[in-house]
Amino acid sequence: MEFSAWMSAIQNRCETTLDRLLPGASIAPQRLHGAMRYAALGAGKRVRPLLCHAAGGICGAEPSRLDMVAAAVELIHVYSLVHDDLPCMDDDVLRRGKPTCHVEFDEATALLVGDALQSLAFQVLAEQDLADPGVRLAMVTELARAAGSRGMAGGQAIDLAAVGQALTLEELEFMHIHKTGALIRAAILLGAKCGEPLGAAALTRLDHFAKIAGLLFQVVDDILDADASTATLGKTAGKDAAQNKPTYVSLLGLVRARDKATELRQAAHQALEPFGERARRLSELTDFIVDRHF
Amino acid sequence: MEFSAWMSAIQNRCETTLDRLLPGASIAPQRLHGAMRYAALGAGKRVRPLLCHAAGGICGAEPSRLDMVAAAVELIHVYSLVHDDLPCMDDDVLRRGKPTCHVEFDEATALLVGDALQSLAFQVLAEQDLADPGVRLAMVTELARAAGSRGMAGGQAIDLAAVGQALTLEELEFMHIHKTGALIRAAILLGAKCGEPLGAAALTRLDHFAKIAGLLFQVVDDILDADASTATLGKTAGKDAAQNKPTYVSLLGLVRARDKATELRQAAHQALEPFGERARRLSELTDFIVDRHF
Repeated sequence: MEFSAWMSAIQNRCETTLDRLLPGASIAPQRLHGAMRYAALGAGKRVRPLLCHAAGGICGAEPSRLDMVAAAVELIHVYSLVHDDLPCMDDDVLRRGKPTCHVEFDEATALLVGDALQSLAFQVLAEQDLADPGVRLAMVTELARAAGSRGMAGGQAIDLAAVGQALTLEELEFMHIHKTGALIRAAILLGAKCGEPLGAAALTRLDHFAKIAGLLFQVVDDILDADASTATLGKTAGKDAAQNKPTYVSLLGLVRARDKATELRQAAHQALEPFGERARRLSELTDFIVDRHF
Repeated sequence: MEFSAWMSAIQNRCETTLDRLLPGASIAPQRLHGAMRYAALGAGKRVRPLLCHAAGGICGAEPSRLDMVAAAVELIHVYSLVHDDLPCMDDDVLRRGKPTCHVEFDEATALLVGDALQSLAFQVLAEQDLADPGVRLAMVTELARAAGSRGMAGGQAIDLAAVGQALTLEELEFMHIHKTGALIRAAILLGAKCGEPLGAAALTRLDHFAKIAGLLFQVVDDILDADASTATLGKTAGKDAAQNKPTYVSLLGLVRARDKATELRQAAHQALEPFGERARRLSELTDFIVDRHF
């Protein structure tokens, strides 16, 4: 299958799975369920589900299991977007080409949407028959750590503290390793947990790739934010500069930020090489992330 | 042991356990970790941990396991308080006798505190050696459901929609079964899961008790809100009436609300009777909740 067909297929599966896991908009409380569906369905690049499925390919994981794990990771991602867009955080009005959740509904509802999506993510991992119980517990632990104060939520806190600050490149990477990297890494490691267990060396290699992928994704995001139009992004462009947020582009300039992306891409491919053909989707996905014109 | 000594002992154990589970305030991101500790430590009646330990007593559960499960439930409770107090929700400035988290820190930090406490709750259930993996997965599922859109977060959404509305008693109970009842029920059922498995009949009875306990707690809360002073409550008193929120007191009047509490107390004791002496703490705790002068 061509990469683009594979990608569309996974994106469709992700949409179908989320649609099935989210309570119907006719179930009480209707407004909350409607808002959860508004935030989670109908858009989104589904980068984390794609990574999850691609990583599952390395160890022969069943696609139906990967659907559930990918959906759990995506639910955490969507909750974080809804909360990040709130007025007390980034105060954004546009997301995935639509009004943000608190604009379309209201702030209190958006707060509860994020809260309930997070609960649902863990419920999905715990109650679906994805792997043996010990592995599923390890998945819950991994996802909870990636989402928590020493992962994504912690990265947000570092980001808040960084607005208007002059960060070093090291501090910027520390922030991104938490804010974006932790969940991307979890998507990849959880995908791998759905299949045949990897040996210690293979797992270390995959984890190395996962960390590179997280940074790569952020560098590209910063370049796109500086470079693209709001219409292309589906979210407000040029926001980082407007908010005086440190980014790879503000620290390195556009040219060196692009060089950095190229370096990370090479390192990512190197990490995948020993997996051979089994890592094909992960490899293609890495290129797509760098070259993306979503 | 006297009930009051037992209660103090559990409250102390809960404080110690939370202190140990929460990342230190010197660990980055320091402000977030400091705020998480501010919200979770040093105060609180610990009603849910007490219920969890008391329910564990029915099936001979080890106190050290109950500590972890009780802490997980309390982390969910604390997260919900932090988010409920935010300006877009109840907009409250006082909680457990201290400034609320967003007043002491800031709104964005309080938002992340709630988010990260929720993640930590599931991490604790998944990574601590509390019971066999299948039982721990059932605990994660139970807690996630209790916290989510068809539990506590859903109850909050119903509560939001109810402000200024004339609810029937039935609608009010539907709200409370979700908003407060779901997590109280989870505290009791998770406590019971820490010990010897209960038979189906005993489990049904305990679940019946748990549902009554949730309502009872809310009726008493409404009476206290109408009746007590802010200093006694440690949170803003008379808030429900000021916000024109429907309560048992606004619907039934103070006298009939007290009758309702008495009826529920009797029903709770009846549900516990067949457990005999093993339910002693649950029974004492029920009385304490009704008579409480926290």
